[in-house]
Amino acid sequence: MKILGLDSSGLVASVAVVEDDVLLAEWTIDYKKTHSQTLLPMLEEVRERLELDLHSVDAIAVSSGPGSFTGLRIGSATAKGLGFALGKPLVEVPTLEGLAWNLYGTDRIVCPLMDARRNQVYTAAYRFCPAGERFDMQTLITQKPVDIAEMLDQLNALEGAVIFLGDGVPVYRETIRRCCKAAYGFARAGNNRQRAASIASLGAVYFAGGRSVDASQHRPEYLRKSQAEREAQEQVTHGKKD
Amino acid sequence: MKILGLDSSGLVASVAVVEDDVLLAEWTIDYKKTHSQTLLPMLEEVRERLELDLHSVDAIAVSSGPGSFTGLRIGSATAKGLGFALGKPLVEVPTLEGLAWNLYGTDRIVCPLMDARRNQVYTAAYRFCPAGERFDMQTLITQKPVDIAEMLDQLNALEGAVIFLGDGVPVYRETIRRCCKAAYGFARAGNNRQRAASIASLGAVYFAGGRSVDASQHRPEYLRKSQAEREAQEQVTHGKKD
Repeated sequence: MKILGLDSSGLVASVAVVEDDVLLAEWTIDYKKTHSQTLLPMLEEVRERLELDLHSVDAIAVSSGPGSFTGLRIGSATAKGLGFALGKPLVEVPTLEGLAWNLYGTDRIVCPLMDARRNQVYTAAYRFCPAGERFDMQTLITQKPVDIAEMLDQLNALEGAVIFLGDGVPVYRETIRRCCKAAYGFARAGNNRQRAASIASLGAVYFAGGRSVDASQHRPEYLRKSQAEREAQEQVTHGKKD
Repeated sequence: MKILGLDSSGLVASVAVVEDDVLLAEWTIDYKKTHSQTLLPMLEEVRERLELDLHSVDAIAVSSGPGSFTGLRIGSATAKGLGFALGKPLVEVPTLEGLAWNLYGTDRIVCPLMDARRNQVYTAAYRFCPAGERFDMQTLITQKPVDIAEMLDQLNALEGAVIFLGDGVPVYRETIRRCCKAAYGFARAGNNRQRAASIASLGAVYFAGGRSVDASQHRPEYLRKSQAEREAQEQVTHGKKD
């Protein structure tokens, strides 16, 4: 089974191809260029170097949110366009599950933190449970936008050692140091940000389990309203009061 | 601190740049092209996309062996050329330590297996020990070429759950299933082969600890004699007997 993975949910743009649990290619950039300038050219470079016929992929896995609104739209639009043109299904991989999959096989509680601005993080908590030769990823806390202090309270209640990752870590490192009661650690450079390899690898698991959608059905999961929507809502509310 | 990482020790060609524990770029290909055709063009693509002045890197970390003889020579020659031209030190990261670093933070014994042909694997065993917010990687069995059955005996004696990774896994999966007494699992696509991100990330740790060499000093660590050397040796021995 061959899965193309895309992640542009945060600052990272990443493209990967996974076939039968082997990573054939991964191209990841975390740099100031916008994803609309990088994602498709990077996919084209992956395609060229692998001499890949895109029709040979079984599905397109995409980081489906939460994340940056613009980033998610670029990733989703790219995945939808490819899925429509190639006649291939899409696999929606929640961003935080993809991030947690970077640490596949750890015994610790995995807590991805994405900086959601406005004093919030997009976060969740997972645990890898041994299941024969594999690990199943179990959700302990479902992904949500939340205040970091509230999330740390919930993690403390779980009473297990935690490993944190994601672009929320540098923003809230001191808060974690102050408030995390359990043993904790931070993932390192190779695995502490979004990776399309994880989207493709976890996407392959989901696809094998029957979790896919038609390109036309896919919508990113923002988890919050965009700034434009909030402002429009406030105007309406404000207008009513006047 | 900015570290360029290179790995061409096996079937994978991989280039990465890590700065202060963030992966700025990673470009990995596992495809039939020879590394001499891919490694430098991929580095050039990384350099272009990051608008990277190569003089801004602090050191060049290279997967220093064991591995494919030709692959190691291409990686080492590239690293030495860059180090010499840029006046930057090299950090030698043993291939199996780099592979194990993919699974940073796991509680399991990490056993990388590289297919060494002639019924042998290049292998080693490591454990991540919590050290404050970080993990130190402790060597349980030093890297060596060995028969897989002998290695599994040694792992069984350690009496801990094991996670295997590397291109030796598909070759010896059935042997592992038959002979491994401990609980065991296999790493997934995102982390089960060589990654330059791990070479750069672990290289940064070694460089910060003072472990670097001048480009002129670096030699890859083959761990075994090459086929040409073995044949020459056999000819000499055979000649003596005649």
